[in-house]
Amino acid sequence: MIDHARPALVLLNPGPANTSERVRGALTRGDLCHRESEFGDLLGVIRAGLVETLHLADSHEAVVISGSGTAAVEMSLLSAVRPGRSVLVLDNGVYGARIRRMCELHGLPVHVVEADWRQPIDPARVADALAAHPDVDAVAAVMHETSSGLVNPVREIGGIVAATDAVLVVDAISATGHEEPDLPEIRADFVCGTANKGLHGLPGASFSLVSRDKGLARLRDVPARGVYLDMSGHLAAQRVGDVLHTPAIPAYYALDEAIREFREQGGYPARVADYRARAAVLRAGLDRLGLELPIAPPHRSNSVTTARLPEGVSYQRLHDALKERGFVVYAAQGALSSEFFRVSNMGHLSLETLERFVSELADVLSATHTRQVRTGPSSPGERS
Amino acid sequence: MIDHARPALVLLNPGPANTSERVRGALTRGDLCHRESEFGDLLGVIRAGLVETLHLADSHEAVVISGSGTAAVEMSLLSAVRPGRSVLVLDNGVYGARIRRMCELHGLPVHVVEADWRQPIDPARVADALAAHPDVDAVAAVMHETSSGLVNPVREIGGIVAATDAVLVVDAISATGHEEPDLPEIRADFVCGTANKGLHGLPGASFSLVSRDKGLARLRDVPARGVYLDMSGHLAAQRVGDVLHTPAIPAYYALDEAIREFREQGGYPARVADYRARAAVLRAGLDRLGLELPIAPPHRSNSVTTARLPEGVSYQRLHDALKERGFVVYAAQGALSSEFFRVSNMGHLSLETLERFVSELADVLSATHTRQVRTGPSSPGERS
Repeated sequence: MIDHARPALVLLNPGPANTSERVRGALTRGDLCHRESEFGDLLGVIRAGLVETLHLADSHEAVVISGSGTAAVEMSLLSAVRPGRSVLVLDNGVYGARIRRMCELHGLPVHVVEADWRQPIDPARVADALAAHPDVDAVAAVMHETSSGLVNPVREIGGIVAATDAVLVVDAISATGHEEPDLPEIRADFVCGTANKGLHGLPGASFSLVSRDKGLARLRDVPARGVYLDMSGHLAAQRVGDVLHTPAIPAYYALDEAIREFREQGGYPARVADYRARAAVLRAGLDRLGLELPIAPPHRSNSVTTARLPEGVSYQRLHDALKERGFVVYAAQGALSSEFFRVSNMGHLSLETLERFVSELADVLSATHTRQVRTGPSSPGERS
Repeated sequence: MIDHARPALVLLNPGPANTSERVRGALTRGDLCHRESEFGDLLGVIRAGLVETLHLADSHEAVVISGSGTAAVEMSLLSAVRPGRSVLVLDNGVYGARIRRMCELHGLPVHVVEADWRQPIDPARVADALAAHPDVDAVAAVMHETSSGLVNPVREIGGIVAATDAVLVVDAISATGHEEPDLPEIRADFVCGTANKGLHGLPGASFSLVSRDKGLARLRDVPARGVYLDMSGHLAAQRVGDVLHTPAIPAYYALDEAIREFREQGGYPARVADYRARAAVLRAGLDRLGLELPIAPPHRSNSVTTARLPEGVSYQRLHDALKERGFVVYAAQGALSSEFFRVSNMGHLSLETLERFVSELADVLSATHTRQVRTGPSSPGERS
């Protein structure tokens, strides 16, 4: 169990990330019935706050769902594709693969543009696939592949999709609010995000921002494919301050507070600049330690860094040594899991904390190196 | 917005219900990464706590999902029916109708046993329907129809279903922990509940308790029908202390604390006895005020009471007058909404508070009556 005697760990995993005392404090605002006008007001403030904060107030409308970001993505996908039409999935990581699996399980025909996990999706291949498959009704792209820390060229992809009848569904779960490009320029019809991660709320509530033109038209044309993930039903209820099912009230309180904090800290441009500075501090440190970063600089996100494990150091050993020093890092996923680890700079976090992390990491690696030199490799696969 | 200067409202709506300071306090235990062993430990304690507390530890295993009770029901239903087989839905209220809609939207063939909203489902009709439709793979029953406050004879229905190859899915969302009969006697294969309502946690986490024999066999036989509601996937992950998607951590903290509180307050039998005493106080009060209760005594739940609105008093007027006095009551749903209102006695609540509510209700009705006598009916439909 959690040892409350020891100082709180600094979470450098990509969500749930560290939150401020102010946001955590909002969790305890008190019991609230979601059929009362107070909840309707709160929901209205959150829905307006999400699109305003993310500069989409003129073009998009918010639908909130109680659940993780995956619920928001699946909800959006099920509403984006008309019966008998197909989805073009762009897959270069765990989250692209997850969208592909969603389509397959729901019986939605799929075309796929795949790329190596270390390479962005090539927009030209998206254009080719759209030309080759006129049955495509929706293109599904991951803006920031959390599994690698790679940002896909969603702005270029958005331009291509906007010239067709297809809608663009963007999994922006770990991109919302802190990655470039600015969301309006992507021209996405469904922007899926979560209260946690870059918005610095708590997990439990997620959302999809639907475009008022093509997106809302799809919601009208696509019949419901389930109850919990019925985006049209949620939207109709939320427009009048209601919800279809009992909402995760505390997570809504925290999201409301997080949006206020976001604004007070300077809004979208300030958050992006802050995350850029964080990533720069972190990567400068990893460079000094000689750790290879497999994603090329132009494609790196502002919030997640994948780095190669030093030779002879397993992820578990590195993780445990850093945790003893107060920092939680994250394993790499899937294709990258045996050779790499991930460090996130999401959430309520200062540059000083990141500097301190780099210094502790240096210390851990140096201790490992010393021990290896002293004792020799512990197995044939380990070399100092 | 919420007026923090005024005392907290007493929620007499059937969830989210009032919670204790202790449970709300648990929301702020702190940031936690769900890939760390501390979360695995917490999840293990919750999963074991749910089945132990509800006396199902010998026969059932828990699967937790981040979302409302509806998510738990839909998740269970999708795992309970093999391809090509059908569902027998027992429908005598909003929640039965919702299950029917779930089946229809997912293309699961449905047979229905319907009953008037004020009457329990007749077990003999369930037996007849099972005999008439050998393609039925799952029977879906609502234990406590929150829309009316009626408890269906799930124990008798469970005995009938247990003698067949079909599994029994029970929506026990507003029954878990405080309604009779004791859960093991129902012989349900999927018992769907929520952290909120009778368990006194906060909304954001729900669960399904699956029987180790027929239920687990179904999970093995039924292919996944989606990602977010994939019960087999969730179970496989949760057995090793992991989760498929970012969980609503604060709701998990609150559920953990609520289970501890539940036990310390005497466990399952004590909670049922407490709720019976609450319902008795409330109903004695409503009787004294001459309000008709449309559900016959043997079928009334321990936690929700539907009462007829006094002549000439609209729900909105009654609701608003009571809210001014600190109490939130709830509209009736669907077929009952124009003539009735609902009062719940769920959540952290004392008998004294319920006595005080009855007294305020008497005062409101007497004021309404006096005003009507003095001023005459304000419209042709209103009589004093």
